[in-house]
Amino acid sequence: MAAKIIDPAVLAETYRNEIRADIARLSRPPLLVGILSAEHGPSRTYAEWTGKACDEVGVRFDLRMRPRMQVEDAIREANADPEVDGIIVYYPVFGTGQDAYLRELVDPMKDIEGLHPHWARALYENRRFIDPAKTRKAIVPCTPLAVIKLVEASGVAGPPPRPLAGKTVTIFNRSEVVGRPLASMMANDGARVFSFDIDGPQLFLPGPADQGHTVEETEIDRAGALAQSDVVITGVPSRDFPLVRAAEIKEGAVCVNFATIRNFDEDVLEKASVFIPRVGTMTVTMALRNIVRLRKQAEGIS
Amino acid sequence: MAAKIIDPAVLAETYRNEIRADIARLSRPPLLVGILSAEHGPSRTYAEWTGKACDEVGVRFDLRMRPRMQVEDAIREANADPEVDGIIVYYPVFGTGQDAYLRELVDPMKDIEGLHPHWARALYENRRFIDPAKTRKAIVPCTPLAVIKLVEASGVAGPPPRPLAGKTVTIFNRSEVVGRPLASMMANDGARVFSFDIDGPQLFLPGPADQGHTVEETEIDRAGALAQSDVVITGVPSRDFPLVRAAEIKEGAVCVNFATIRNFDEDVLEKASVFIPRVGTMTVTMALRNIVRLRKQAEGIS
Repeated sequence: MAAKIIDPAVLAETYRNEIRADIARLSRPPLLVGILSAEHGPSRTYAEWTGKACDEVGVRFDLRMRPRMQVEDAIREANADPEVDGIIVYYPVFGTGQDAYLRELVDPMKDIEGLHPHWARALYENRRFIDPAKTRKAIVPCTPLAVIKLVEASGVAGPPPRPLAGKTVTIFNRSEVVGRPLASMMANDGARVFSFDIDGPQLFLPGPADQGHTVEETEIDRAGALAQSDVVITGVPSRDFPLVRAAEIKEGAVCVNFATIRNFDEDVLEKASVFIPRVGTMTVTMALRNIVRLRKQAEGIS
Repeated sequence: MAAKIIDPAVLAETYRNEIRADIARLSRPPLLVGILSAEHGPSRTYAEWTGKACDEVGVRFDLRMRPRMQVEDAIREANADPEVDGIIVYYPVFGTGQDAYLRELVDPMKDIEGLHPHWARALYENRRFIDPAKTRKAIVPCTPLAVIKLVEASGVAGPPPRPLAGKTVTIFNRSEVVGRPLASMMANDGARVFSFDIDGPQLFLPGPADQGHTVEETEIDRAGALAQSDVVITGVPSRDFPLVRAAEIKEGAVCVNFATIRNFDEDVLEKASVFIPRVGTMTVTMALRNIVRLRKQAEGIS
């Protein structure tokens, strides 16, 4: 039996409809500023994709091209401008640790990708709202959010508040921007999550009283984790990573690849119930969902 | 004529005397908490050195050994404890991007090494005080500060407010923790600074009206920069870096190596006026100077 393949573009369209309906209720369309340093080719393509995605839902997109030495000032300017609702900086700018500095310079309240450590910390500390009255939701990182929405679309998820209760997940990748927040979010949703990265496996577990999650070291190896996982998620940008094979996974597992290269052997299609080959446009769609949410909150629309 | 060699240990003793005198005026000795994850050998050695340095001046040192999964909680605990004046976390803990997350978790007001992006930003924005009344000085990163103090000890520096006015400096290293803040600090002090790193050279210049600095791209190459530099500073942790040779430097230049390996050819000793082979104990001494300054400020002692 062949796995069902979920196309992220189809799911993204569902969310775009929601976003369009929300924008129709706003006093003005949100304004997203893209900051692009001219030096890097691939970044320009990403910026163009953002522009198209904005056009499709009615978010205004202002792409600002700057020499890399002026990116810092461009960020400050966009931070200070009350007309600007969201900021996306296209990395690499310097391609060194200085990029991390720039990432933190973006006002967290305009960081619609949720890349700022401010949001990672909110996630790890299970602070879901940014105001004491709990009317304004914290931003969650958009690539992990895209993965979660795709996993939900696979049918593996149950009802809230812990839709992944009783499920076991394996994630290969524990980067600060995707794998670690993703493991935390899935454990918050009730899953046991085995997280693999170069510094060894960790186990993310749902916290007590339906709250948050905890993390501990674990001795499990890849084979042991995969054999019991209902969901397998990969994001390893290296050809040295041994492809996940059908023989390793559980019958009917949901398999998601968010790496830019393929981390699964083709034979998983015969054993998985659902295969999601990429996150694709779901990431930018979640970023646009975030900017619209920020505008709605700013205008007091629930 | 052979270069004079400055031993950082000798200069450090001068600062230790200042620190001891300051501690004598405090209502209690400062408390420094070290957080060490048991997994890494070299970190333990650094922690022991910190302990010795604290003993020598009368700072209390409490070394807390924690499994790496508990380092985050240990940081939060030390952040929250009003008895704790300073925190040093010994990296690597995870050896991944998660270490950057931990670094930012440390309360900037207890980050006596000045590694938190909070202090980098204060430096780049030329905010020298942390309070509106300008009574409490911002913390500056301790390794760059150690280099500056060593350069001052070489005799190349003039009077304040811009002791390096008219001087040209070349720095090989633009890391976020040493090279970039160092270039900024030296430009703040009046120097023209050529900064080299894998992403190309940058030129740091003193700002107008004796304030701060500016940064721009430059086309200069290594030979052009070295030929006009009064001070040459290296911090390249790679054997692939071609050693700086006598033929490249200006007669009488001050040469400083802060890398853990040697970036200068031995022949520079014949052409340099001063050679500083390492920062050594000056770094921890500057961190202790920071913790004492924080205590003094907290107690209202000028």
